[in-house]
Amino acid sequence: MKETSKAAVLVGPQKYEIQEIPIPELKEGDLLMKVEMSGICGTDKHTYIGQVKQYAGTEAEMDTPFPIIQGHENVGVVAKITKSAAENIEYYGQKLKEGDRIVMCPDIVCGKCFYCNNVHGFLWCQKMRSYGNSFSRAQWPYLVGGWSEYMYLMNGTFVYKANPALKPQELVQTEVMSITCSLDKLKEFSSYSNEGFNSGDTMVIQGVGPIGMMHLIKARIMGAGDIVVIDKSEYRLKMAMEFGANVALNLDKTTKEERLAKIREMTGGRGADVVLEMSNSPHAFVEGIELLRRGGAMLEMGNFADTGEVTINVHRHICSKNIRLIGLTNHPITGYGPSMKLMERYHDKYPFEKLVSHEFLIDDVDKAMQTALSPDSMKVVIKSK
Amino acid sequence: MKETSKAAVLVGPQKYEIQEIPIPELKEGDLLMKVEMSGICGTDKHTYIGQVKQYAGTEAEMDTPFPIIQGHENVGVVAKITKSAAENIEYYGQKLKEGDRIVMCPDIVCGKCFYCNNVHGFLWCQKMRSYGNSFSRAQWPYLVGGWSEYMYLMNGTFVYKANPALKPQELVQTEVMSITCSLDKLKEFSSYSNEGFNSGDTMVIQGVGPIGMMHLIKARIMGAGDIVVIDKSEYRLKMAMEFGANVALNLDKTTKEERLAKIREMTGGRGADVVLEMSNSPHAFVEGIELLRRGGAMLEMGNFADTGEVTINVHRHICSKNIRLIGLTNHPITGYGPSMKLMERYHDKYPFEKLVSHEFLIDDVDKAMQTALSPDSMKVVIKSK
Amino acid sequence: MKETSKAAVLVGPQKYEIQEIPIPELKEGDLLMKVEMSGICGTDKHTYIGQVKQYAGTEAEMDTPFPIIQGHENVGVVAKITKSAAENIEYYGQKLKEGDRIVMCPDIVCGKCFYCNNVHGFLWCQKMRSYGNSFSRAQWPYLVGGWSEYMYLMNGTFVYKANPALKPQELVQTEVMSITCSLDKLKEFSSYSNEGFNSGDTMVIQGVGPIGMMHLIKARIMGAGDIVVIDKSEYRLKMAMEFGANVALNLDKTTKEERLAKIREMTGGRGADVVLEMSNSPHAFVEGIELLRRGGAMLEMGNFADTGEVTINVHRHICSKNIRLIGLTNHPITGYGPSMKLMERYHDKYPFEKLVSHEFLIDDVDKAMQTALSPDSMKVVIKSK
Amino acid sequence: MKETSKAAVLVGPQKYEIQEIPIPELKEGDLLMKVEMSGICGTDKHTYIGQVKQYAGTEAEMDTPFPIIQGHENVGVVAKITKSAAENIEYYGQKLKEGDRIVMCPDIVCGKCFYCNNVHGFLWCQKMRSYGNSFSRAQWPYLVGGWSEYMYLMNGTFVYKANPALKPQELVQTEVMSITCSLDKLKEFSSYSNEGFNSGDTMVIQGVGPIGMMHLIKARIMGAGDIVVIDKSEYRLKMAMEFGANVALNLDKTTKEERLAKIREMTGGRGADVVLEMSNSPHAFVEGIELLRRGGAMLEMGNFADTGEVTINVHRHICSKNIRLIGLTNHPITGYGPSMKLMERYHDKYPFEKLVSHEFLIDDVDKAMQTALSPDSMKVVIKSK
Repeated sequence: MKETSKAAVLVGPQKYEIQEIPIPELKEGDLLMKVEMSGICGTDKHTYIGQVKQYAGTEAEMDTPFPIIQGHENVGVVAKITKSAAENIEYYGQKLKEGDRIVMCPDIVCGKCFYCNNVHGFLWCQKMRSYGNSFSRAQWPYLVGGWSEYMYLMNGTFVYKANPALKPQELVQTEVMSITCSLDKLKEFSSYSNEGFNSGDTMVIQGVGPIGMMHLIKARIMGAGDIVVIDKSEYRLKMAMEFGANVALNLDKTTKEERLAKIREMTGGRGADVVLEMSNSPHAFVEGIELLRRGGAMLEMGNFADTGEVTINVHRHICSKNIRLIGLTNHPITGYGPSMKLMERYHDKYPFEKLVSHEFLIDDVDKAMQTALSPDSMKVVIKSK
Repeated sequence: MKETSKAAVLVGPQKYEIQEIPIPELKEGDLLMKVEMSGICGTDKHTYIGQVKQYAGTEAEMDTPFPIIQGHENVGVVAKITKSAAENIEYYGQKLKEGDRIVMCPDIVCGKCFYCNNVHGFLWCQKMRSYGNSFSRAQWPYLVGGWSEYMYLMNGTFVYKANPALKPQELVQTEVMSITCSLDKLKEFSSYSNEGFNSGDTMVIQGVGPIGMMHLIKARIMGAGDIVVIDKSEYRLKMAMEFGANVALNLDKTTKEERLAKIREMTGGRGADVVLEMSNSPHAFVEGIELLRRGGAMLEMGNFADTGEVTINVHRHICSKNIRLIGLTNHPITGYGPSMKLMERYHDKYPFEKLVSHEFLIDDVDKAMQTALSPDSMKVVIKSK
Repeated sequence: MKETSKAAVLVGPQKYEIQEIPIPELKEGDLLMKVEMSGICGTDKHTYIGQVKQYAGTEAEMDTPFPIIQGHENVGVVAKITKSAAENIEYYGQKLKEGDRIVMCPDIVCGKCFYCNNVHGFLWCQKMRSYGNSFSRAQWPYLVGGWSEYMYLMNGTFVYKANPALKPQELVQTEVMSITCSLDKLKEFSSYSNEGFNSGDTMVIQGVGPIGMMHLIKARIMGAGDIVVIDKSEYRLKMAMEFGANVALNLDKTTKEERLAKIREMTGGRGADVVLEMSNSPHAFVEGIELLRRGGAMLEMGNFADTGEVTINVHRHICSKNIRLIGLTNHPITGYGPSMKLMERYHDKYPFEKLVSHEFLIDDVDKAMQTALSPDSMKVVIKSK
Repeated sequence: MKETSKAAVLVGPQKYEIQEIPIPELKEGDLLMKVEMSGICGTDKHTYIGQVKQYAGTEAEMDTPFPIIQGHENVGVVAKITKSAAENIEYYGQKLKEGDRIVMCPDIVCGKCFYCNNVHGFLWCQKMRSYGNSFSRAQWPYLVGGWSEYMYLMNGTFVYKANPALKPQELVQTEVMSITCSLDKLKEFSSYSNEGFNSGDTMVIQGVGPIGMMHLIKARIMGAGDIVVIDKSEYRLKMAMEFGANVALNLDKTTKEERLAKIREMTGGRGADVVLEMSNSPHAFVEGIELLRRGGAMLEMGNFADTGEVTINVHRHICSKNIRLIGLTNHPITGYGPSMKLMERYHDKYPFEKLVSHEFLIDDVDKAMQTALSPDSMKVVIKSK
């Protein structure tokens, strides 16, 4: 085994360096993972560009502790493991040994704060720390992100033995699949009285990047009716149609009025039952509400970073619309096992691996990021070899 | 019995006339009600002032068909009844006869549209017509609002025999109590994982006019924890404290920062679990969100008429807040019986009749409306004698 | 058009007669349907055999008013229609004319009783009357069931224009698909905390006759994980595997202990997350609970007719199991449109028409019933030609 | 401080000994509590009598590791505390010091099993250990139940700083109040369509011992309508009426038919909306279902220990009844803070302390248990002095 790990280090906004970082000794309770594949997520793009976001629901902005190693959607293999980690670190109580393939949740939580104690799945910890985002490469244990040959996983990390029926290109999407628990949350609100997300409902998805696409597939798996996708990228719209969308509307080739007219035509003049806002624009939020029928359900996940302000009419958009609106920024740590199982059950019908449109080596991180930022890609991943 | 009915007719914005209107012959299926008491509602104020609102979730504005007779929160006594009405009109299947006290839902619905068919309680009928609002005094059956000695109730009206344990001052508030089904709706979303409205939750109510006050009482009946009320009127804040609020904040005597600081102090720095927006201002909507903790639940009922635009930051206010937001404009027609029963059960603890702060005769409609518009009143009612 | 309608009349338990019945004149508001296809349902088998069932939740048994014409899962074509029916009878407000293909809900409801007023979808009307079950062939309008060339549909019948994308073999299953709203009901109870029916859950279906099979497909459409089916019929188990079941257990070839062991092996020793009891045996109910994990969700639909008594241990089966149990006997009348739409959306993946295993002419009603009663059939239908 | 702790030790079924037990040295992370008051719970009675119960949802019976010290509903004062316990043991992150009053959850959980990971509130841990029940007095740390002057609380215990507004007689009931989260769970299932537990619903409570009484109060706090209580004890029925029940039925002085007739008379012939089975009899479970209306909601908590078998008719009691049934055996550890807050908010209206009907010293444990077993007591508590 090498004594150093090659890593793509983001030393400041829009500036990567390739470094060889010494692999630290393992402390008891920890493990070292040989990274196989690590996805580029929207969060990584925000950080690269320099956009900020709130964190854990406080007023504070999340500071990026440059230099950092990005990469929080990771699949890899146990390279070295300490005794107690082998016994205890796996979420479902399975024993781990060297060579076992694993996926991981990037978040480490305090387990003591109000949100950890009261909200299931530890998704809003007030002291949350995340691999690939909030650890500095300058501090122990240094190998704190997935765009590296090795990652150092500390005790307290949520680690899951990989479902053996899945390929790395599928496993690397486990976190994204977990995020679609958003739709399970909407389903909780369903009723015979047409609330929430019901079987056969007409759905609009605004933005079909990797998050929007996975929601499209999950919506199909869960029994949605007609699905309309809206995006600027023909590449993405085409892929969405291949994965089960029924109507694709190009944001640049249609007017807002035309989009509204199309949705109404499909729904007896009413508007969509469910809208998923998965783009990165406050204007999409407002349009999304307007595309909704009275009493429709809306999920707001797209404005994950600060995108500025927008004007609404509370009477028209909220009160009189009788809207059911949920904002969401994270997934429960309980979602990884079910997500892998769901991909196993349904990958014959939905070939998740095809969502991985581009694979790059660590050395090519700049090219990888540019590709991820372009409209002609879906999930872009970094490989260690 | 008189052959005419004295009524307060709103012939245009801010202009009432007292008229004697001939009482029409009853058509089979219909009944004539001697009005005992009729409330002044926020909607009546909007109409009086000339504010507009959307209707039935369409793009269209609701036109006021002047001249109209206002008054849709009504209690009265059956003055004359046709055979089939006596047999069939009562919602719970009870027989009616002259002299029976009744309350009524102001809405008449089509029973055929998408919303009537699919949404329980007929609250979003696309062809909704409402006594006191959308009927013209110029058209049959003329006596179409409660600020009149008599009202003509057409077949299709939802009529409920009055609970004999309640006084007119309580019965006149049955519709307002029905509107607090909003809190039952929030309760549906409650969970051990602190979503929606849970027992003991800290709640903020923005605006404690009659709607806000009834929500305060209902929240108490349903097991809320600390309740903070915000209003400009000392009169209303004082009454709210008498009915179970724990903290009163005067909007004119505190800054937004002070209000936020107070709520945070009460909640370990987090913000309220539940916020009810019951004022008539888009700025209250934005402040309400800011008073909420991450993942908190918000009810938007205050901007019932068009109050103009306001600016939000989708990232901060919606997505990152992980908000659960419900807009509501109406109540299910199924709520009248349970509402009367609830008032009966709990009027020892909460003397609903005291919410009726002023009673005026039809002749004094101008004074009644001015009183209702002032901050030093709660529920103002019009009496026929 | 013929002046009589050939019909299979059940004159008493286990005794059919083929009769030519004069077609009555249409009253205003009504329509005449040329029946294309009518399914044989479990209820029809109970009636044929002479089993009884409770009705509308009362203590009373439902009497069968022999002679009757069975058949309540019907698809047909409008043969004659009155003016007001053409305007108003279609549930979604569409106009109807001769030649239009329609499906129908068999239930006619009072619209006035407690359950009609309060429970969405009119499924528990206390005065419910049903085509194919509670009307006598001896009374006007005589043609009151689907095993006849023509059916007379009275005003008040819920009629739905057929989805043009579907074949009669699919449309005839619309009611059965509507019944799977049971799974939507279970989904309402889902949560991140593993209650109700969650994406990827392990499910057991006891009994894969037509109802169980449709639940299997609906569970797949809604994102179930592993599905285990239990039945005595190899024919049905084989078909279930073709439609997406993962494990088939033959009730006659396995012991209860073996079935329990198999489910536990699949679930880390816990038991199934969800059990659907769709057989016709009280013992299946008890075994179903035993197959469930602590806190699992169970749907009891199989003991639709009186199957006698069974012994349980309330401590072990109910309290300590922390069971979530729902009994269900009917579907909301709002389910027909969404059910047709769902079949349209998903018939490429699940060829519903193959569930129709046998088609018989009216003259062959005895043979049809015997086939439906045998284990080597799935949905058996009666055709008018 | 004494070097020994007097304790009531149950050395075998129905045999107590008063012992002086040496107080062990504190290990880091742990604390010593001076017990002020400890309740006698139904579980304690089952153990005393020798009844068995399932545990953690497994097939295995729970063995009682005699000798034990009972008492799991405890309030006390920190007598000695280690540094890390002072910093970390309190559930809401508050610091603890000697002299602070605390309450505690009796359950210690593994935090790793399927149920700990997936079910919010750690209520079904498969390796659960509980003070007062599953620890032996013969093994370290010996002082493992509340019927002792001192209790040794190990690291991992859920400890809550006492709400200063409450008296010991109220605080000792915190766990019982937490158990009424059962009603919050029922509320989750409420809907405008009359499911679950809605405001104003008619409720029956079978058995008004301490658990049933607390449910009565919680049901009032949450807005129930008429509440009917059933019990054999006139003492308890009388107290229930004082705390807000509307009708009391003595099980020994009425027949099942009379009880059914009374409930039907109150509900238009339908039956109760909600039934809470809180007695200790399988026959109550069956009667409870029969008292329910179609589609009503039932909570089964009374058969907490094995009470033997009973016969049901699955068709009549489950399927045709369209029952919504939940079995429950425990409460989430998240309930203690909200429960104390709720008692604070509502003790003016409901004087919880009066539920403590008898207080005994440790020396009088036999008399205390006999009193708890008699029908003429409510909550009986053991005091250390």
